[in-house]
Amino acid sequence: MSTRRPTIADVARAAGVSRGAVSFALNDRPGVADATRDRIRAVAAELGFTPSHRARALSSSRALAVGLVIARQPETLSADPFFPAFIAGIEKTLAARGQALLLQVVPDQETERRSYENLAASSRVDGVFLTDLRVDDPRPDLLESLGLPTVVIAPAPIGCRWPVVAVDDRPGISAAVEHLVSLGHERIAHVAGPQEFVHSRSRQEAWADALRVAGLEESPYVWSDFSPSGGARATEELLDLPEPPTAIVFANDLMAIAGTAAAQARGLHVPDDLSVTGFDDTAISGYLRPPLTTVRTDAVAWGSAAADCLLSLVNGDTCPDVLLPPPDLVLRSSTAPPRPTTETDHA
Amino acid sequence: MSTRRPTIADVARAAGVSRGAVSFALNDRPGVADATRDRIRAVAAELGFTPSHRARALSSSRALAVGLVIARQPETLSADPFFPAFIAGIEKTLAARGQALLLQVVPDQETERRSYENLAASSRVDGVFLTDLRVDDPRPDLLESLGLPTVVIAPAPIGCRWPVVAVDDRPGISAAVEHLVSLGHERIAHVAGPQEFVHSRSRQEAWADALRVAGLEESPYVWSDFSPSGGARATEELLDLPEPPTAIVFANDLMAIAGTAAAQARGLHVPDDLSVTGFDDTAISGYLRPPLTTVRTDAVAWGSAAADCLLSLVNGDTCPDVLLPPPDLVLRSSTAPPRPTTETDHA
Repeated sequence: MSTRRPTIADVARAAGVSRGAVSFALNDRPGVADATRDRIRAVAAELGFTPSHRARALSSSRALAVGLVIARQPETLSADPFFPAFIAGIEKTLAARGQALLLQVVPDQETERRSYENLAASSRVDGVFLTDLRVDDPRPDLLESLGLPTVVIAPAPIGCRWPVVAVDDRPGISAAVEHLVSLGHERIAHVAGPQEFVHSRSRQEAWADALRVAGLEESPYVWSDFSPSGGARATEELLDLPEPPTAIVFANDLMAIAGTAAAQARGLHVPDDLSVTGFDDTAISGYLRPPLTTVRTDAVAWGSAAADCLLSLVNGDTCPDVLLPPPDLVLRSSTAPPRPTTETDHA
Repeated sequence: MSTRRPTIADVARAAGVSRGAVSFALNDRPGVADATRDRIRAVAAELGFTPSHRARALSSSRALAVGLVIARQPETLSADPFFPAFIAGIEKTLAARGQALLLQVVPDQETERRSYENLAASSRVDGVFLTDLRVDDPRPDLLESLGLPTVVIAPAPIGCRWPVVAVDDRPGISAAVEHLVSLGHERIAHVAGPQEFVHSRSRQEAWADALRVAGLEESPYVWSDFSPSGGARATEELLDLPEPPTAIVFANDLMAIAGTAAAQARGLHVPDDLSVTGFDDTAISGYLRPPLTTVRTDAVAWGSAAADCLLSLVNGDTCPDVLLPPPDLVLRSSTAPPRPTTETDHA
């Protein structure tokens, strides 16, 4: 038996196609029917044909990798359950297409900008994901000027030239508010994420809109930072008000969990004295005391859809804005009717 | 002002060194003194000189990227606070050296093996990190046969040809057991991670050894899976014993948090009826009711040291086994003396 490495010609012969078709199929370029591409790949796998990455990249002028730059401090990143799930979703799509993910974690926005410039200059990636979209974010324009295909992750389309893959968080927040209204709450506060992020704003606005519909627009809110310590501080602030809320809608689970503990430390019972809702449905949220009522998003599906869209752009195809299914409200035990008010209040 | 792109000759002239020295310094190869390398890099940055990645990779026959393959289901991955912090630490080192991280998340060990083979065949990375080390793990040998420089992440050196960057978790577990013994506990159970992982075994053995030293070796333990649901189930099992423990040492925070809630759901008070300790010091652990006493590891520093070691190997230098400082016990409020036993017990 020969130990010669199989060539592209061997694959073409065995699959009964041209060498060009093999190249197109293995490089995931358009122009080969799906069934043919699958057959060519099966034959290549059977023969043990592995195109040299560098040869492929040079021949196709493509890096065969996409990039994700995350501007976060390690501490915030390690506390956030969104990114690992989102990245796992990206990988699911990339792995099936022979692509790789190049990940960079940078401490600030200045380093982030330089990372994108270096990625573009070095041809290390064919495109990037843009997450943690900020209000008046300069990055979509930067990436356009760099000519780097981009998919934006956001709660809604933003009117830039790049496609947005969106999960609209508003219906989830509305459902949480409506649930609390139906239980009889009238002072339903909100603890929001950082004001500079589009998704923090979107959740805060959804909360305000839902209260307006219910005629309860006087409820208080606090901008916070998605961290446990921020959630605890914001909860203290709300509970110190002359008329404290009977329910708090938190913009993520970590703040809701810390806020619950802060209320309990004051001797309040959750949910009888204070109802609490979260956002994310993190793994731990169903295993707390009380189990947390929260809004569930599918970060894995989101990452997977974003990667599909980006690979289309990289292949020279178009990708329209993608709106994924809205999140669900998961009812657990951190919400209940408020304690009956005293007789005089009703008089 | 000229808009010509600066060349390597411009950098050499401005720094007063040879072009070869510039190339060596920017490609992070040995043979240039640290001070000279820093000066050359400063000059290159000032002039805005960006070597083409592809040209660098071809000239140096190096991918200028290292790989991390994680064999986990998205669900387990998104619940685990270790990886985002560890990856942030890796990135800290890589970013400073112009290197990139190629990340792959795969669902099982078979896909994992193929990922390593493909990484080696495609020259996409110059080396890899090996995490989640298993008992009788075939991967160190696989990576040796593939010729892919590897750094192993584990609690202790394992006697393979690859360097290990280790944090010994045993002193952290011993400190937790000793703390509980000093409070007066005599039935100190353990909820362990999956039996196939070296770090689960290491923690279980450290728990058993510490009990032996204290003369309490009859305490029960359960193998679990690091997940909240696994932690809750294991706690139920231990509390259902004819002689339930008065304290439980959990192998991670997620299981400890869920175990605390499971005990509370039975009407037990934590810590008065049951003391609980965790492992990791996740961001949420100080913001629970009660705040969790736990073992703190510095996953960021671990990732950073592992990347330093791997880049040494990639450069053709050696890297000895690295033993990082042991973890600390962080005392919070989930531990207390056991309730006094009845008079007859003392008779």
